[in-house]
Amino acid sequence: MAISDFLFGRPLATSEERAEHIGVSAGIPIFGLDALSSAAYGPEAALTLLIPLGLAGVHIILPISAAIVALLVIVYFSYRQTIEAYPHGGGSYTVASENLGAGAGLLAAAALMIDYVLTAAVGISAGVGALISAVPSLHAHTLPICLGILALLTLINIRGVRDAGAAFKLPTYLFIGSLLIVIAVGLVRAIMGAGHPAPVVAPPRLPAATEAISLWLILKVFASGCTAMTGVEAVSNGVMAFRDPTVKNAQKTLTYIIALLIILLAGIAFLCRAYGIGATDPNSPGYESVLSQLIAAVMGKGVFYFVSIGSILLVLALSANTAFADFPRLTRAIAINDYLPHVFLLRGRRLLYSYGIYALVFLTGSLLVLFGGVTDRLIPLYAIGAFLAFTLSQAGMVVHWKKNQGPKSRGRMIVNGVGAFATGITLLVVLVAKFVEGAWVTALLIPVLIGIMLSVRRHYRRVHDETRASGPIELTDLLEPIVVIPVDRWSRITEKGLRFALTLSKEIRAVHVDCEEDAESVCNMWEANVAGPLRAAKLAVPELVLLTSPYRFVVQPLVDYVLKVEAENDGRHVAVLVPELVVRHWYQNLLHNQRANVLKLALLVHGNQRIMVINIPWYMEHNTDVKVLQKAAEEKEKAKAS
Amino acid sequence: MAISDFLFGRPLATSEERAEHIGVSAGIPIFGLDALSSAAYGPEAALTLLIPLGLAGVHIILPISAAIVALLVIVYFSYRQTIEAYPHGGGSYTVASENLGAGAGLLAAAALMIDYVLTAAVGISAGVGALISAVPSLHAHTLPICLGILALLTLINIRGVRDAGAAFKLPTYLFIGSLLIVIAVGLVRAIMGAGHPAPVVAPPRLPAATEAISLWLILKVFASGCTAMTGVEAVSNGVMAFRDPTVKNAQKTLTYIIALLIILLAGIAFLCRAYGIGATDPNSPGYESVLSQLIAAVMGKGVFYFVSIGSILLVLALSANTAFADFPRLTRAIAINDYLPHVFLLRGRRLLYSYGIYALVFLTGSLLVLFGGVTDRLIPLYAIGAFLAFTLSQAGMVVHWKKNQGPKSRGRMIVNGVGAFATGITLLVVLVAKFVEGAWVTALLIPVLIGIMLSVRRHYRRVHDETRASGPIELTDLLEPIVVIPVDRWSRITEKGLRFALTLSKEIRAVHVDCEEDAESVCNMWEANVAGPLRAAKLAVPELVLLTSPYRFVVQPLVDYVLKVEAENDGRHVAVLVPELVVRHWYQNLLHNQRANVLKLALLVHGNQRIMVINIPWYMEHNTDVKVLQKAAEEKEKAKAS
Repeated sequence: MAISDFLFGRPLATSEERAEHIGVSAGIPIFGLDALSSAAYGPEAALTLLIPLGLAGVHIILPISAAIVALLVIVYFSYRQTIEAYPHGGGSYTVASENLGAGAGLLAAAALMIDYVLTAAVGISAGVGALISAVPSLHAHTLPICLGILALLTLINIRGVRDAGAAFKLPTYLFIGSLLIVIAVGLVRAIMGAGHPAPVVAPPRLPAATEAISLWLILKVFASGCTAMTGVEAVSNGVMAFRDPTVKNAQKTLTYIIALLIILLAGIAFLCRAYGIGATDPNSPGYESVLSQLIAAVMGKGVFYFVSIGSILLVLALSANTAFADFPRLTRAIAINDYLPHVFLLRGRRLLYSYGIYALVFLTGSLLVLFGGVTDRLIPLYAIGAFLAFTLSQAGMVVHWKKNQGPKSRGRMIVNGVGAFATGITLLVVLVAKFVEGAWVTALLIPVLIGIMLSVRRHYRRVHDETRASGPIELTDLLEPIVVIPVDRWSRITEKGLRFALTLSKEIRAVHVDCEEDAESVCNMWEANVAGPLRAAKLAVPELVLLTSPYRFVVQPLVDYVLKVEAENDGRHVAVLVPELVVRHWYQNLLHNQRANVLKLALLVHGNQRIMVINIPWYMEHNTDVKVLQKAAEEKEKAKAS
Repeated sequence: MAISDFLFGRPLATSEERAEHIGVSAGIPIFGLDALSSAAYGPEAALTLLIPLGLAGVHIILPISAAIVALLVIVYFSYRQTIEAYPHGGGSYTVASENLGAGAGLLAAAALMIDYVLTAAVGISAGVGALISAVPSLHAHTLPICLGILALLTLINIRGVRDAGAAFKLPTYLFIGSLLIVIAVGLVRAIMGAGHPAPVVAPPRLPAATEAISLWLILKVFASGCTAMTGVEAVSNGVMAFRDPTVKNAQKTLTYIIALLIILLAGIAFLCRAYGIGATDPNSPGYESVLSQLIAAVMGKGVFYFVSIGSILLVLALSANTAFADFPRLTRAIAINDYLPHVFLLRGRRLLYSYGIYALVFLTGSLLVLFGGVTDRLIPLYAIGAFLAFTLSQAGMVVHWKKNQGPKSRGRMIVNGVGAFATGITLLVVLVAKFVEGAWVTALLIPVLIGIMLSVRRHYRRVHDETRASGPIELTDLLEPIVVIPVDRWSRITEKGLRFALTLSKEIRAVHVDCEEDAESVCNMWEANVAGPLRAAKLAVPELVLLTSPYRFVVQPLVDYVLKVEAENDGRHVAVLVPELVVRHWYQNLLHNQRANVLKLALLVHGNQRIMVINIPWYMEHNTDVKVLQKAAEEKEKAKAS
C-alpha cells in the first residue's frame, strides 16, 4: 500500500459516491459539532458579562436563555423548510442568490466565508485554550498545538466525509451524554431539594453586585449568548452528503442537533440559577469555567468530572470541523457561478472539493499564526457573519414561497418570515452591541470580499466572451505554418529538429544567432549537412538566416525575428521549433544553459495568436552505455554502405 | 537612462572589447590589491607567533622576512617567464594542465578556486575586523557590513574591469604612498639615530621571553608569513585584460607589484626591529596592530596616522577584489575543457564572465553568513591553495621549456625549476605547520572538487557522444506526425487548435477525457462543429477518442494514451497540441487550472524521442473591449452571409 493511500485513503471512483453518503448518527458529529460545542461557550460568554450584577445576573440568565431558545426554535422550523425546498444543498448563499438576486447572494457568501474561517480558528484556539487552563505547563506551546490540531483535522477531512463522521462520533456522543447526565441528575436533585439543591463541590461565592441592570447590558448579554447559535445553518448547506432519503435524513439530523442544543442551553441556565453558579473573571487566578463549576457541583470531582471535562476540550477543538465540512461546499457553490476560481469545482481523490479544504486550512492557519493561537479577540467578529447569513437565507425563503405557490406555501412563508424578522433584529442587536469591539472589521471585510468575487466573475465572463466560437470550425485558409528553427552546431539534435520541420512545412527558416563571429563555420556546416543533401534529393532548401548580435544576447534577436516574420506574413502561422535536451537528473540541468526555456517563456510573453512553440525534446539515453550506442550507429552505417 | 544602465553600465558590444583593456596603473589595483594588502597582515601573523620569544622574536623577524623576500624574488622571475609564454592567460590551471596533464590541472584548479573564495571572504572580514577594532560600536553589525561590502564589490565588478580599476586606484595608491613615506622617514630616522631611533609615540613594551627559539617555531612563523605571498599569481592569470603590448604591460605590472611588496615587507621588518615593535595579543584589551604601532612610532598620531590607517582598512576590505578579477577567468578556463558548467563561458552585458562572478559572490556570501562575518578561523586554510598552485605552475613551466626548446629555454627552465622547488618546499612546510589548525579541510576539499569536475566532464562527454551526428541530414522516412489534441467544450481555442492540427497532418486524434460523464454532449459538439463541416467539405474527419477516467484524473489518461499511440506507430512522431490561455496579469493564472502546464511537464517527464509538444497559446485581447470584439465577429459573419 502506498504511503499516500495509508494517510489519505485509496482514491475513490466517481461511481462510489453513493457509498460515501452518511446517515443521521454520523451527520450529528459532522454538521452538529459547531452548534453543540457552543453550549460550552455561549452561556459562559453571557454570564461573564453578568458578573457585575452579582446574584441578580445569575437570575437574569434564565429569561435571556429563554429568548435564545425561542430564536433557536424559530430558526429550526425555518431551516427545516429550507432543507426540503433545496434538497441539493440550500446554504444561505444558494437561497439568497436564487431568490433575492446576485447581490444578496454575494453578501451571504462573503459573510459565510468569514464565518467559517473564524469557526475553524476560534474553535481550535478555544479548545487549546481550555486544555491550557487545565495543564498550564503547555502554555509555551500554544501555537504548535493549534497547528497540530489543524493538521489532524485536515488529514481526517481529506480522507472524506464518511471517515470524518466515524472519527468524531465518540467525542461528540461522550460530550452530549455526559452533559445530559449532569442535567438530568441536577434536575432531580433540584426538584428533591425544592429548587435549592446542595452542591457536592461548592462553587465559588458570587461577588457582590457593582452595577444595576440596564437594557444596554441585557442587549449585550443577548448578543454574546447568540454566539451559541452559530453553526445551525450547517445541515442545510450539506444536504447532499446524506444518504437516501436525503431530505428526511437531513431534517432528522437538524432536529436532533437543535433539540440537543436547546436541552443543553436550557439545562445549563436552569442549573446555574439553582446552584447559584456565575462566571468567574477569566483574568483572575481563581478562574473556573461555568461548566466545570456545574459538573463539580452536581457530580463531584471524580472520574466522571474528568471524563466530561476531557470531552468538552475535545469537542471544542473539533468544532472547527464543521467549517471543514461546509466551507468547500460553499466555495464550490460560489465557483459554479464564476465568482471564485474554478479549482474549487474539482473533486480530489476522495471525492471532496480539495481546493476548498486547502483554502480553509491556509486561511485558518494564517489567522492562528497571526494571533499566536489566541483568537479571543476574534470572537466579537464571529456572530455577525452567521446572523447575516441566517437573515438573508430566511428572507430568501419568503420570496421562494411567494414564487412557488402551493397549498402549504402561505404557512411556510409566515414561518420563514418570522425567522427572517427575528434573526434580522438579532443581527442588528449584535452589530450595535459589538461594533466597537471588532464587528466593524467584518463590516469592512465583507465589501472587500464581494469586490474580489465580482472581479473574478468579470474575468471569467471576459474569457468566455472572447473564446466563444461563433460557429462550427472555419475551413478556409488552412495554410502550412512558416517554421522557424534555431540552429547552432551540427548534431543529432539539430538533425532531428530539421527533419521534423521538413514534415511540417515547405517554408522553413533556419536561424543562427551569431555572437562569436563564427558565421562562416555555420554556413559551411549548413552547406555540407543540410543544403547539399537536400539539393541532391531535389528537395526545397530551407533558408539559412544569420542574425548578428553585437551584445551577445541570443534570445532577444530570435524573438524579434519571429515577430518580424509573423508581421510580414499576414494570415500565416509561425511555428517556432525549440530543441531541448532532457537530462536524467534535475541537477544536470545546471550543466546546460536554459536557453530553450528562456526562449519558450519569451515567446509566450512577447508572442501573439499566430505564433506557436513546438518543443523537440532530446532525451539522454538513460540506461544505455555510450559504447553500445556508437556500435549501433556504426552497424547502421555499415548496413547502408553494403 | 534605464536604472540597470545606471547601476551596471550600458551593455558593451563584443567589438568594444579592446577599449575595455587596461594599462599598468589600473592593473596594479586590480591584480595587486590581494598581494599588496597582505603586507598589512603577513608580518602581523608572523610576529603574533613570536610574542612568546619577547625581544628575541623581534630580532628573528628580520631573517625570516629575508627568506620570504627571497622566495618572492624567485617566484617573480618564474611568473615573468610564464606571462611571456602564455600571453592568453597563464594561470596555474592552464600551465599545469597543458604541461603536466589533466590531473595536475584539476589539482591546481581546485586549489585556486578554494584560494580565491577564501581571499574574498577573508579579505572582506579582515577589513571589517580592522574597522571594528577602530570603532567598537559597530561590532553588532559585523555581518551586515561584510555583506554590504560584498554587494559593493559585486556592483563595481559587474560594471567591468576598467571601472573596477578606476574605483580602486585612489585607496591603493594612498595605501602604498603612506606606507612608503613611513618606511622612508623611519629609515632616515634609524640611520640618523644609529640604528636606535626615538619613537614619536612609544610602542607598548615587549613582554619578557617565555619560550626559547625552536626550529618548529621558526617553521610556523615562516608558514604564517607566507600568507603575504598569496595573490602573486593573479597577474599571470589575467594577462588578456591588458592593453597592447599585452605581455609587456602585464610584466611591468607584476614587476611593480612584487617590488612594492618587497619594499613594504622588508621595510616593515626592519623598522619593527629598529623601533622594537612586536605584536600584541589580539585577545587582550591593549591590542594594537603592528602597523598602527609602527606608523605612530615614526609619524606620531596626527592626521597622517589616521589617513594611513583608513587606507589600510579600505585596502584590506578591497583586497577581496583580486578574487573578483581572477575567479571568473579561472572558471572560464576550466569550463572550456568541460570540467565546469558551460555557463561560465558566457560573457554578460559588460563583456565579463558574469556567472563566475555570481558563483564567487554566492560562495563568499555563504562563507560570511556561515561564520557570521568573522573568518579568522579560515586563515590557516588560506596559503595551502596558493602554494599548491605556485608549485604546479612552476613545475609545469619546467616541462614547457623542455618541450619548447629554444636559445634561452635552458636558463628559463632553471629559473622555473628553482621556483618550483622553493614553493614546493614552502608548501610542505605550510602543510605540516598548519595541518592540525585547519589545513586538513583544504586537503579534504580538493579531492571533492576534483571529483565534481570529473563528473561534470563525464556528463558533457556523454551528451556530446550521444548527440554527435554521424553524417549529414537523413532524408528518408519523412512522415507526417500523428497529431493528438485534447478537446473539451467547443470554443475558439479548440477551433484554433484543430485548424492548426489540420495544417500539420492528415492523421489527427482528438481526445476527450471523460470525468463528469458528459460523453454524449462532447460527441454532439464534435458532430455539429467539426465532423459535419469536414465531411461536407469532403475532408478527412479526425478520430474522436473518448477516455473514461473513473478517478477524475485528467492528465494521466492523456499521457497514457499518447504513449500508447507512440508505441503502436513505430517510426512515426506524435505531436501533442496543448492549447493554453495566456492571461494578462500573473495573478489571473490563479483563476485557471494549470492543466496545460501539468500536461506539458508530464509529457516531458514520461515522453520520449518521438513525442513532441506543440503549444497553442490563446492570448486574451488585452486592450480591446469585449463588445468591440463581438461587434467585429458579427460584422465578419454578416460579410460572409452576403
